[in-house]
Formats: sequence, structure tokens, C-alpha cells
Amino acid sequence: MSVTQAARPSGREVNALRPLSIVTGFTRHAEGSVLIKAGDTHVLCNASVLEKVPPFLKGQGQGWVTAEYGMLPRSTHTRSDREAARGKQSGRTQEIQRLIGRSLRAVFDLEALGERTLHLDCDVLQADGGTRCASITGAWVAAALAVRTLLNNGLVQRNPIKDHVAAVSVGLVNGRPVLDLDYLEDSGCDADMNIVMTGKGQFVEVQGTAEGETFDRPTLDGLLDLATVGVAQLVKFQQQALDLAQSKG
Amino acid sequence: MSVTQAARPSGREVNALRPLSIVTGFTRHAEGSVLIKAGDTHVLCNASVLEKVPPFLKGQGQGWVTAEYGMLPRSTHTRSDREAARGKQSGRTQEIQRLIGRSLRAVFDLEALGERTLHLDCDVLQADGGTRCASITGAWVAAALAVRTLLNNGLVQRNPIKDHVAAVSVGLVNGRPVLDLDYLEDSGCDADMNIVMTGKGQFVEVQGTAEGETFDRPTLDGLLDLATVGVAQLVKFQQQALDLAQSKG
Amino acid sequence: MSVTQAARPSGREVNALRPLSIVTGFTRHAEGSVLIKAGDTHVLCNASVLEKVPPFLKGQGQGWVTAEYGMLPRSTHTRSDREAARGKQSGRTQEIQRLIGRSLRAVFDLEALGERTLHLDCDVLQADGGTRCASITGAWVAAALAVRTLLNNGLVQRNPIKDHVAAVSVGLVNGRPVLDLDYLEDSGCDADMNIVMTGKGQFVEVQGTAEGETFDRPTLDGLLDLATVGVAQLVKFQQQALDLAQSKG
Amino acid sequence: MSVTQAARPSGREVNALRPLSIVTGFTRHAEGSVLIKAGDTHVLCNASVLEKVPPFLKGQGQGWVTAEYGMLPRSTHTRSDREAARGKQSGRTQEIQRLIGRSLRAVFDLEALGERTLHLDCDVLQADGGTRCASITGAWVAAALAVRTLLNNGLVQRNPIKDHVAAVSVGLVNGRPVLDLDYLEDSGCDADMNIVMTGKGQFVEVQGTAEGETFDRPTLDGLLDLATVGVAQLVKFQQQALDLAQSKG
Amino acid sequence: MSVTQAARPSGREVNALRPLSIVTGFTRHAEGSVLIKAGDTHVLCNASVLEKVPPFLKGQGQGWVTAEYGMLPRSTHTRSDREAARGKQSGRTQEIQRLIGRSLRAVFDLEALGERTLHLDCDVLQADGGTRCASITGAWVAAALAVRTLLNNGLVQRNPIKDHVAAVSVGLVNGRPVLDLDYLEDSGCDADMNIVMTGKGQFVEVQGTAEGETFDRPTLDGLLDLATVGVAQLVKFQQQALDLAQSKG
Amino acid sequence: MSVTQAARPSGREVNALRPLSIVTGFTRHAEGSVLIKAGDTHVLCNASVLEKVPPFLKGQGQGWVTAEYGMLPRSTHTRSDREAARGKQSGRTQEIQRLIGRSLRAVFDLEALGERTLHLDCDVLQADGGTRCASITGAWVAAALAVRTLLNNGLVQRNPIKDHVAAVSVGLVNGRPVLDLDYLEDSGCDADMNIVMTGKGQFVEVQGTAEGETFDRPTLDGLLDLATVGVAQLVKFQQQALDLAQSKG
Repeated sequence: MSVTQAARPSGREVNALRPLSIVTGFTRHAEGSVLIKAGDTHVLCNASVLEKVPPFLKGQGQGWVTAEYGMLPRSTHTRSDREAARGKQSGRTQEIQRLIGRSLRAVFDLEALGERTLHLDCDVLQADGGTRCASITGAWVAAALAVRTLLNNGLVQRNPIKDHVAAVSVGLVNGRPVLDLDYLEDSGCDADMNIVMTGKGQFVEVQGTAEGETFDRPTLDGLLDLATVGVAQLVKFQQQALDLAQSKG
Repeated sequence: MSVTQAARPSGREVNALRPLSIVTGFTRHAEGSVLIKAGDTHVLCNASVLEKVPPFLKGQGQGWVTAEYGMLPRSTHTRSDREAARGKQSGRTQEIQRLIGRSLRAVFDLEALGERTLHLDCDVLQADGGTRCASITGAWVAAALAVRTLLNNGLVQRNPIKDHVAAVSVGLVNGRPVLDLDYLEDSGCDADMNIVMTGKGQFVEVQGTAEGETFDRPTLDGLLDLATVGVAQLVKFQQQALDLAQSKG
Repeated sequence: MSVTQAARPSGREVNALRPLSIVTGFTRHAEGSVLIKAGDTHVLCNASVLEKVPPFLKGQGQGWVTAEYGMLPRSTHTRSDREAARGKQSGRTQEIQRLIGRSLRAVFDLEALGERTLHLDCDVLQADGGTRCASITGAWVAAALAVRTLLNNGLVQRNPIKDHVAAVSVGLVNGRPVLDLDYLEDSGCDADMNIVMTGKGQFVEVQGTAEGETFDRPTLDGLLDLATVGVAQLVKFQQQALDLAQSKG
Repeated sequence: MSVTQAARPSGREVNALRPLSIVTGFTRHAEGSVLIKAGDTHVLCNASVLEKVPPFLKGQGQGWVTAEYGMLPRSTHTRSDREAARGKQSGRTQEIQRLIGRSLRAVFDLEALGERTLHLDCDVLQADGGTRCASITGAWVAAALAVRTLLNNGLVQRNPIKDHVAAVSVGLVNGRPVLDLDYLEDSGCDADMNIVMTGKGQFVEVQGTAEGETFDRPTLDGLLDLATVGVAQLVKFQQQALDLAQSKG
Repeated sequence: MSVTQAARPSGREVNALRPLSIVTGFTRHAEGSVLIKAGDTHVLCNASVLEKVPPFLKGQGQGWVTAEYGMLPRSTHTRSDREAARGKQSGRTQEIQRLIGRSLRAVFDLEALGERTLHLDCDVLQADGGTRCASITGAWVAAALAVRTLLNNGLVQRNPIKDHVAAVSVGLVNGRPVLDLDYLEDSGCDADMNIVMTGKGQFVEVQGTAEGETFDRPTLDGLLDLATVGVAQLVKFQQQALDLAQSKG
Repeated sequence: MSVTQAARPSGREVNALRPLSIVTGFTRHAEGSVLIKAGDTHVLCNASVLEKVPPFLKGQGQGWVTAEYGMLPRSTHTRSDREAARGKQSGRTQEIQRLIGRSLRAVFDLEALGERTLHLDCDVLQADGGTRCASITGAWVAAALAVRTLLNNGLVQRNPIKDHVAAVSVGLVNGRPVLDLDYLEDSGCDADMNIVMTGKGQFVEVQGTAEGETFDRPTLDGLLDLATVGVAQLVKFQQQALDLAQSKG
């Protein structure tokens, strides 16, 4: 079998993102609310401004950015247990919400934020692979909307957001590097990376896992190249969504 | 002050429901998926068909209908703790999901369903009062969509749904009975009832609570009258949504 | 079969309460202690005065009334799991203790109570149906005894209890409305209501559930009539128990 | 101060038990039900016969005897947290219920019991010291009542109970060994032992703790002597309660 | 069968301890760190000095000594569940850590310690019976090392340790009293005692359990004699380890 | 400031590992037991062979490899809470044990293992940075020892281990890439990567995080180069430890 000729299940090119949609103001109470759709992966990202900081930061003159993540029980092909009913968050959930928090903090000037917390809730309404990457990309937009309000209200003096941050998955499918895996590709791939980068193209997080086959250095290099292209496009989408929200606002 | 002249904050008549919208097929994996909007209260109701029953029903030749309920942390005016992170569901959450389950079962022929479970997940994306009533009303539509698939696939032979079930709140606001309270009215009312009724106008659940002032029998009678009118309208909306989904289908 | 001729298992008239006994001072440490027996349902209701309020009430110049409920593992026909051993209270337990707390608060002047908590513990020693109603009826007497001590000691200046509160169940058994269901009737009934009312006959809580058959408005009206009669008698028993305790005191 | 002249707070002799009362049949559902009162310590001991054994005993042709222990929140001078609400049993609770279970098993022929479990629930209604000892003494009577029913019904062929088991506390109060400490003595004593013995005067459990002062061998010997006297009396009370229950039976 | 002639599985005399080794300074961060080996039972005992006391001691001018105990999952012959993964400590674990804490406190002058906590962590790396006794014996050495540092640094003015404390098990194996049971003897013995004593030979804790056969007073006396001999030897080993650590220091 | 001239706190070259020691047979019950010391980081890695597989693998004709991780409370500079006492494992703990399990599985032929589980317990006795990497490197040796026993006993027919797997951290300290960070470097570094590789130099996991500063592609490339050198040395140490264990065996 000639793997190089096999098309992707979605018909996309190897370096093509899924259709992306970023709806701002999806819910009304959050200071920033975004529904991000990367193909069939839909994540509601709400940014809440809380006028307090965690105990370890009290009186330090700086703020905090943190995240929580969840999947609705029937966001997946078959129903998963509700974590609130089971009484604990899975290791996977904790791993993802820690990743989202670290990624956002990498582009925040926490002193400029002041002694308050920006709490990001990323809830997956529908899943088709890449939910953690969509969460990071969407959470940044929600955070930017919340910060805009703080700036407009004079609650912060200078913009605490230093740069964009966005994330994309890349992986080896049938031995070929592809960008932005959907569930079908993700569940069958040999290796899988989630790459978080800034608007300037700096790396924030690099998380690669050999799912079935270990991979060599040239393969790793190729995957990093692909991700760099993908994140650059996501950053443009983020900016467009922000600009559009402002013109509506 | 003459309370009888005070308009409702929303400008609605005392016997007017909030604008209602029922979007079917909101997510793609669930056997039945509905986004119900009662004014600013938005609940995603997903019905999952599980080919198993709880232990106490094994081998009894009948099915089960059950529900879980949750609020996204920032569905509310100020952010609430995530129940999965706190490690347990609140008493309120459990009370509501037990109510939804009982209400749906009241109109189900569990033998006709066969040995399978219809699991309803009601997740509040945005809250403005009346989330438990919207959950019941929306869950019935999601259940009906899931059952339609079972019927179409020949997995059940006769319709296990015997009648509609829908719910509405009524309450005493400034001494006056009003229908379908929003958050502003709900948090300031004297008494509050949630009424669950069938399409034929039979009562399924009657839950009234004196929040501030206890109430007498004529007041109770007036509230029940109002609810009867409201549920009848909700049932019509349910049927329209189902008919529309079929014509699209 | 002519249902109207069938006697109740207990031989009681349809509008007859079970034999009621209220023993005050059943345990010695609680500020108010009552063993209430409604037929074979025995509930120990202890009222504790705690010189603190929950965090949300600190510095508000008012008190709080709350309740906890539990069933001893072998209070029931077959042994139930101990909730402390299972590590959580069931949804049913939480629902009942929330109901008891709300019912008591409906007749309390929380400002007159001062910044303290009246904590009611209702523990079922033996169950035969109607445990939540017996808990409310008994808890009110325990609360009144605790308040009497506060008044006698000059810790509160005016009586924070505005009226009696008591509760009774009513239900449809074989199509006929009956008062104060025991376990045998409760487990086989078509519909079941728990009604909480004040000494003046005002409604505090109305909770009706169609267990097997939904019910129409005239049926609902009949059940409410029956409950009104029953609660009026319970209130008299409460007062007698209080008077007797005082004469002994 | 001459400690030898100081009377006990209760006025009891150093070798006197508290007034003991054993009420059989206190609740109606348990196969054996006993309310034991040792002075102001009141424990409800219910024995349940369960027709199953724990997994590690399945198919071994023998039964099991186990116990659970709890204190009602207001059994004590000041209200304690409800363990079911806190979500876990304290170390003390677990220690006590393990002790009760081991003590009872020491006098049981588990093969004669057959593949069933005797589950003992010891719930403290009112506490004044010595609750674990009263629980053991009362649980044995409840167990004997339950076994009597099994024998009468022909469910077991020979008596699985080989001997009595009862328990008493002894301690050093103001340097003097005393029997059956109440709460006042217990909270101020130097050393404290709980001794579990059989009807034949054999030791089952010996648990001594230096609370304030360590103790020497002659002191230990004196405490053991005292306990031996006390348990012998408790065993007589157990037998009287059983005989009385039979004559009533 | 003549049980008196049967040798112990280890070939030891009935009154012989297992080979004992106490390595001080096993880990580097703890204020006192000891690896104690009693035959094949190896326990790491770390003493931490925490500059705070539990809430109930705040502002009382005295310190606290407490302990926690754990077994590594594969310290035993077959792997046990990890308690952190199961989400709770077993009753046995809690019982043991409470025993260790009480034993150490019996020889501490808590006022001399000042408002700080000495926290002892006893973690079993390899188990072959007698882990609670080895924990107490080792924890005392770790505590003494930590206290030595406090004295050397002038943080405490007088030695808060009043005496040694050490523990040993004794039991009836094949009807014969033996000292310091290993796992093989422990799992087959008739009765089993853990005795905690001070350097001066005073009793701190006496915990005896009839595992298979209840025991009479002469047997109990014989077991206590044996334990007295054993603890005296353990105390000498403790002192040697301390002296050696000082000469190295 | 000229960062290039600053020596590492330990005096090591930028590409030098810490002194490594791998003691096999550290405990006696586990099928494979290894104490690995990477400088002052000491981890006990025990491999247990369990003759069962998780439910999702039952009857699939293949085995499973999984891991659990823990830190003793005083393995760190200041005492951390015991996870078993807190009642849950932290997100960090779960993240690490999932990483260890995935890393080991990447070099296992699960079919060759047969329907059994290799359970790896990695418990940190003393921590000085890099505990997850030491855990992986040590766990592989413990796994290899356990597998050797299975092969020797004829329980598996062919070696299920396809290659070595080992891990090392690299990071940017004062802008300079360094290998195998200790705690002092780790807590002050700008970026930090954990790289898991096979004996053949293939990548298994690549996890990089910008702690303080995001990093560019050339920096990432440099870090990967450094890790490749480090893992190759670790693999040699693993083989030496295995060979030595065999010659002793």
C-alpha cells in the first residue's frame, strides 16, 4: 500500500486546518465568552474576572490566570461519565486544564493584571479531536475580551496581554505528518504532538507522544515545521475575531 | 405603593411565557440533542440511548429513564465552583436531576422501551431563572427525538412515550401571581412553584415553596391555574419543534 | 373490585392520623430533644444552639436555622448502607434535610434569634413511612424547647418563633385520597404529597409526585383538603407536648 | 491533698459499675435490637442477618460477623459534625467498629453460622464515656437475639455463639484504679484501659493507654483485676436480659 | 504433636529479637531521618519540625507531636492498593498512625517543645510483620535527632524528650509465648500483643488481641514479661544509634 | 552580566549528568526492585507482576503495563501533605504516573507479555529535581528484572521488551542549555523539557514548557541535542545494572 497517496478522511491537505469559527459573546454573563469551532470540535470558552487571587499570591501585587476544563458527557461518540457525578476529575482533565493555564500565563504580564484572577472555563460541547488545542486558542480570545473590558473601565492601566497564544495538533498518520488531526486521525495515528506557540512564533509548550511508533529526529523536525504554519494561521483568526467583536461592540 | 400597577421587569403580562426557542440537532453525537432557550435561560439537553439498565432492573424486561443536570461555572451572574473540581454535586443539583428523571418517567412506558436506558443530560449554558423547568421541557423533546430513531430503526416496536411532559414556574411577585419567573423575579419573590404537567393537563409534580411569605389556599389555587395555562403552551412548542425536526430530517 | 370498600391496612379511617407520641427531653445534652413517634415511624429530633452563623451571614445581625437528616442503617425493613461509611449522603437525604431547614425557617424571625444557629438533627430510629413529615413536626417542638431556654436565659429578647410548622403526607391509594400514609400504603400508592403548613393554616411547602399515575386538579384539591385537616391536628399535639414539658420543667 | 479520700464524682465505689439497663426489642425491624444504658451512655445496638458474605469468604462454607459504629451528632455535650455530611468516618470511629467486630467474632463459631453475615450497628444516642464498651456488651445481646431467631427458624443447626463477650473500661483517676469511667473521669484520667472478656473470664482484647502518666506493672495488674470483676457482672446482666426477652417472647 | 519442641521458623529463641539496624541520616531533608530494619521489616522514619501547631493548640504555649504511617504498595508479599489512589486511608492505617502519635507524646514535654509541631512520617519500604512497633522505635530516634538540632540551634531551651519510647510485639504461637513476631508467625498466631514502653520500663500502650483463641491471665502475664525484656533491648539499640550519630555529626 | 561564564551550582559541565547509581534488589517482595539515585534524587522503583489485566483488555490475549508515582511527604525540602491523607492524588502526580506508564508501554510488546499486568510503583524517597525522569529510567530496569523472572520461569516465551527507554531533563538556565537539572536549577530556569527516548535514539515523549520565557526553534533544537546525548548515557547505565544483577543472580 502506498501511504503517500492516501487522502485524509476529511479530504483536507496535510497542512490544512479544519474550518475555524470563533463566535464572541456566546453567553452573556462572562466578561469574555467565545464559542470556538474547529471542524466538529466545539468548545465554549468563558473568561471570568474574579477580584481575588489564590492564597500564595496574596499581597504580592500581581494577578493570576488559571483554567478549568470539562467535557459534557455526550460531547463524545459514546456517553462518558459525568465527572461531577463520579466525584473527581480524571487525570486527563487535570493534565489539560493545567496545560491551558500555563499556556495563557506564558503571554500574560501578571503585574499589569493587578491583584485579580482571570479564570478560564473551557467546556467541550462537541468533541472531534483536538479539544485541548481549541480550548487554548479560544481561551485566549475570551481572555482578550475580558481584558478589553478591564482596560475600557480603567481597572487596569496597561494591557497585561503581551502576545497571542494558540495551539494546534500535528501527528504522523500512516507515516505522514499532518496538521490539525480530527478524531478519526487522532485515534489511529502513530505519534501525536500538541504545540502551543505565541504570535511571534516562540514555543510555549511542546508535547509529543509516540502512540504506536516511536519517531526519529527528522520526523520531529517535520512535525514542528507543520505546527508553526498552523499556529500562525490560528493567530490571524484570533485577531479577526477580536477586531470583529470590537467593531460590533 | 400600588403593587397591582407595577409592571414585570421584562414588561411581560403576568400570564406570558418568555420567548421560547427549541433548536433540535444542536450537537451531533447524541441520539437526541436540543438547545432550549426560555428567554435568557439556555439549556443543552442531550438524550443518549445506552444498551444497558441499572442493576436493579436487570432481566426485568423493561428499560429506564434517568437524568443528570449541571450548570457551567459561568452560566450564572457570578462564577460558581465547578462541581467536578469540588468533587461532589450539590444538594440542589441532585434534587433537580432526580426531579427531571421522575418527570420523564411519568410519561414513559418502560416496558415498551425494552432493556435499555435513556439517559438525559441537561447542561445549563446560560442561566436566568427556571433552569429546572426548561430542562424538563427540553429533555422531553430530546427524548422524543431519540425514541424516534429507535422506532425508525425497529429497535422498539411501539412508542414508549405516552404523552408530553413540560414544566413551568409560577410565583408570587409583590403579592401577584405571575408565570415563568426570570432570575430577577425569582430572587425577589414571596413564593415559588414548579409545576410539571402532561399534555393532557394531568399533574406530575407540584413543588411549591414559601420563600418569604407563607401563602393561603386561594393563592395556591391561582398559581395552579396560571401554571396550567403555561404548560399547555409549552406542549404546543414541543410539538412544533418535533414536527419541524421531522420535516427537516 | 370496588376500591371504595377496601379498608386501609391499618384499619384507620381515610382521614385519620397514626397514633402520635411526642416525648420531650429524650436525650440530655441537646438544648431541645424530642422523640416523635407517628405510628411505627420514630424520629429523634435534637435542637442544638451554636453561637456562630454560616460565613454568608457573618455580621448581618441575624441568625440561622438549618437541619440534617439521617436514617440509622437498620431503621428500615432491610438494612441500608450507612451513609458515613459510603462517604456521602444520598440525594434523597440531602433533599429531605433541605426541606426540613426551609420549613423551619419559614416560621422563624431570624433577627430575633440573634447571631446564632439553631441546628436541628433529625435521626430516624425506626421507619414506617412519613419520616420527613415526622421530622418536621418533631423538629419544631425541639426548636421551641431550645428557644424557650434562650428566652429563659435572656439570650434572646423576643420569641423568634412566629408560628407552628408541621407536616403530613397524603396520597392516592387505590384511587382514594388518604391521610398520613404508612410504609405499606406509601410503597403502593399512585400519588404522594408532603404538605408543610403553619399553625394558621398557611402553606409552607407543597410537594406532590405522581408515583404511578398522574393526577387531575380535583384530586389535587382533595388531597390538599385532607392535609389541611391533618396538620391542624398535629399542631395541637405539638402545643400539648410543649405545655406538658413546661409543667414538668 | 489526699487522693485516696476523694470520692468519685458519681459517688460510686471504685469497683462499682454504673446502673445498667438492657432493653430488648427497642426497634422492630432488626433481627436483634437492644438499647443498652450504662448510666448516661445510651447505645442502640441492632443486629441484622444478611444472607451474603463478604467477597473474601464466598464459597468457604462459613459466615461473618462485623460491626459499624456511629455517634449521633448531638449525643455529646457539644454538637459534633455528622460523619455522613463530612464524607468520611474518623479514625476513632473506624478503630472502634473494628474492635467491636473482632470482639464479637472471638466468641462466634463462624462455620455454625453458615454463609451469612451478622451485621451489628451500634449507634450512640447519648454519650457519657465508655461508648465502645457499652457497644460491645449490648451488641452481644443483640447478636444473641438474632441467633435465637435463626435457631428457632431452623436456619442454623447448632448455636454459633460459643460464649458471652462483654467489655468495661478501667482507669487511673487521681492515681487510684476505678471501674467503668464516666465522661468526667475519662477526660481527666491518667491512664485508661478497655478490657474485653468472655463469660469464662478469658481475655479477648486488652487496650490500655497512658493518657497523662505512664504506668507500672503493679498498676496494670490492679486494673486488670478490676476489669475482671466488672465484666463478670456485665455477663450476668446480659444473661438476665436474654432470659427476660425469652419469657416475654 | 508436642508444640514445645517446635523451633521458630527463623530459628530464633522465643525471647530473641530479630537482628536490628538503625541507620541515621537516611534522607537529607528531614530534621531527623532514620531507616530502621527489624529483620526484613524496613521502615523509613522521618521527623519534620513545622513552625506551627494545630488549631486547637494555637496560643497555648505548647507544641504537638503527631504521626502519619503508610506502606508502599509493594512493601508486602503481594501488591496492595495505593491509598492515595484509592482516595482514603484504611482503618488499619489510621489506627496505627494514631498509636504512633500517642506513644511519642507520652514521653514528650510539649511545653518545652514550644509552639511547633514534630511531624513523624513512618513509611514502610518492606514489610515482614511488626511494622507498627518498628515505626514507634524508629520514630523515637528520628524525633531525638530532630530535637537535638533544635537544642543545638537554641530553638528550644530544655530537652522536651523525657524518656525513650519503644515497642515490640509478643504473641502466642502454637500455644507458646514468643517475642517479636515476623509475618509468618504473626499470620498464624493465636493471640498477638503490641506493647509500648518507656526507657524506665513504664507502660505506654498495651494492645492485645485474641486472633484465634482467647487467653487467660497467666498467659497475659507471660506475654507482658516477654515484652518487658524485648523493649529494654530496643532502648539500648536506640541509644547506641543516637550516640553513633552524634560522634559522626 | 555574562551568563556564559557562570558555572552550574553543582560545578557540573552543561552536558554532564549527575552521578548515577542503580541498586537492584533493594526490596525483596517485588518481582523487580530498583533504587535509582540521580545525584540527590532517590526513587524506589518496584515492578509487580499481576496475573490479571484491566477490564478493557480482558480476553484480548495481551497484557498491560501501568505505573503509579508518589513522593514521600518529607522527600522534599519542606514537608508536603501526604496524598493518602488528603484523599486524592494531585494533578501533577497523575500527570507523572500517566507519563511513566506511556513511556514504558512504548517499548513493550504487550502480546508477548500475555494476559498479565506489569505494575510499576515509583516512590520518591528523596527529591532534588528530575524525579519523573529518574522514575522512568529506574522503572525500566525494574521492569526488565521482572521480565527476566517471567522468562526464566517459562511464563512468557519471548522477551516482551523491545528496547530500552530512559528519560532526562534539559533546560535553559540563565539562557544556556544544560543537561539533567537539579532542584536549584529547575526552580530558576526559563524553560524545561523532559525527553523520553529509546535505546535506539527514537523519541517517545517530548514535553517542553516555557516556565518564564518562551523559546525559539534554534533553542529547542539545542535542547533536543543535549537530551539525546544524556539519554544515550543513561541507557548504558541501565544495561550495566542489568548485567551486574545477572552476574549476582
